Amino acid sequence: MSIKVGILGYGNLGKGVEQAVAHNADMELVAVYSRRDPATVKTVTGVKVVSTEVLDAGKEDIDVLIICGGSATDLPEMTPKYAALYNVIDSFDTHANIPVHFGNVDAAAKSSGKIGLISCGWDPGMFSLNRLYAESVLPGGTAYTFWGKGVSQGHSDAIRRIDGVKDARQYTVPVEAALEAVRAGKNPELTTREKHTRLCYVVAEDGADKARIEEEIKTMPNYFADYDTTVNFITEEEMKQNHSGLPHGGSVIYSGTTGDGSKNHVIEYKLTLDSNPEFTGSVLTAYARAVYRMNERGENGARTVFDVAPALLSPLSGEDIRAHML
Amino acid sequence: MSIKVGILGYGNLGKGVEQAVAHNADMELVAVYSRRDPATVKTVTGVKVVSTEVLDAGKEDIDVLIICGGSATDLPEMTPKYAALYNVIDSFDTHANIPVHFGNVDAAAKSSGKIGLISCGWDPGMFSLNRLYAESVLPGGTAYTFWGKGVSQGHSDAIRRIDGVKDARQYTVPVEAALEAVRAGKNPELTTREKHTRLCYVVAEDGADKARIEEEIKTMPNYFADYDTTVNFITEEEMKQNHSGLPHGGSVIYSGTTGDGSKNHVIEYKLTLDSNPEFTGSVLTAYARAVYRMNERGENGARTVFDVAPALLSPLSGEDIRAHML
Repeated sequence: MSIKVGILGYGNLGKGVEQAVAHNADMELVAVYSRRDPATVKTVTGVKVVSTEVLDAGKEDIDVLIICGGSATDLPEMTPKYAALYNVIDSFDTHANIPVHFGNVDAAAKSSGKIGLISCGWDPGMFSLNRLYAESVLPGGTAYTFWGKGVSQGHSDAIRRIDGVKDARQYTVPVEAALEAVRAGKNPELTTREKHTRLCYVVAEDGADKARIEEEIKTMPNYFADYDTTVNFITEEEMKQNHSGLPHGGSVIYSGTTGDGSKNHVIEYKLTLDSNPEFTGSVLTAYARAVYRMNERGENGARTVFDVAPALLSPLSGEDIRAHML
Repeated sequence: MSIKVGILGYGNLGKGVEQAVAHNADMELVAVYSRRDPATVKTVTGVKVVSTEVLDAGKEDIDVLIICGGSATDLPEMTPKYAALYNVIDSFDTHANIPVHFGNVDAAAKSSGKIGLISCGWDPGMFSLNRLYAESVLPGGTAYTFWGKGVSQGHSDAIRRIDGVKDARQYTVPVEAALEAVRAGKNPELTTREKHTRLCYVVAEDGADKARIEEEIKTMPNYFADYDTTVNFITEEEMKQNHSGLPHGGSVIYSGTTGDGSKNHVIEYKLTLDSNPEFTGSVLTAYARAVYRMNERGENGARTVFDVAPALLSPLSGEDIRAHML
């Protein structure tokens, strides 16, 4: 019997989940649920599109709903709402608001007897797991997180909002010297500027003042002002040809000592991803399996990746996992 | 209230655990249990040494017994025996015999209502986790495990058994070209010889035939015959000065695709360890906390790292973990 999955929201992440579900033989995609008119949405795999109004009735035959909305406004409302009806999972990544979001989802999921797993993906998600494993094994060490090289959609959007900008792509790039110092176990103290640089490709509108655009980017608070930022103006054609993908990745590097402090150990978890949304969708899909299983054995309430025993992610039996992966 | 830990067996690994427990404020080391005469054993931290006969009575006030014996003969007997009396954890690493060992420990631990966690450390252990996480997220990809650069005690011992050898140290070294091809997502097919080389430092006895020793090493079946092996003869002094540590490490690198197969993703988990036994001891200690907690909430039977929710490894509360590590 397959695990019946629904997807709520059909942007890049929703498409990533759709394709990931197709790679898992024990899962079946029931529908994509959209706030748009279903007739206007065409899915990659041909799965049907259903209005969220139908979903809201709470009668859909799905084991887990994977919610693919934005953290700013969608998820704080959607995840608790649907946790009151279905097992749900989201990729909420506004760190400061995680405790409140967890509380809201926990209350809703307990009321329905369902599981609501929040903040899943790679950061938060797989990176979080590696911070926790490392700190638990080597207490008192130092964790460093580097992102990139990869496209930051938030930073790309921020550039697009500048007057005279037609299109933009921003890459976050880790500083190689900082990475090497951390990998060597030197425990450097690093400022924001010393960890990452920002590389921007901008298509300007005809006749726009490029010097002004560049200045506006480089001085933008929070997004760019604290970083060494490079701005390259390119043509629309170059943008399409060289920057249409959404690669990303990064490393969690943890350095800690044992014994009398003279023995140092470095743990690195590194991701190099051709497609951020397809990988994130794959993580959500594996955790959807765990959500279903936890609920099947009678659990309910909010969860994070920290609460999920790794074996629950695999379609294989305990015997098979022990024989082939241990 | 502290978690009360006992250590059974006091070699390098036992000392690693002893020092790791001292780094965890919520744990207390009750005793080292030894088959040797306790009066002849001096511990690093000064903790008392008690005869295993006392342990065998089953009345020791310990929450978890960390068994630091060898996989060949000690653990297959010890772990089931003590799982019938205490919560236990071991680092059993004879892959082919894991199913049998798991079964034996499961039966014993169920009879006593205790938990027996087997095959913990870094490989098996942290490396196993990373194989499972990666395969679950990107089903159908390829996992590569590289070891080193690091000292293999089994291979060092094998050289020491050769006639005319006074001392020996063997380093397992991953082949850089193979590592780079895997990291680049090229999915190479690699023979044993293409993945690792073996680097040996040997102190020969006075007048020993070095050419014969070198030949015996290089042609030794299983251990060396399938590898490119380099043998260096050194003095006792050089051995002591340059090769007295037990560094190790390695990488699990997993490569898999999403979507239509055109998007590749590479996941690498890499360890660089100054001391293999101190790091392994630290992993065992973190999992001892989880073993205690699982038993406290009423679970019993055999477990592996796959069955342990990551949050159980940390002394921090769920709230703290979510606020600081997610």
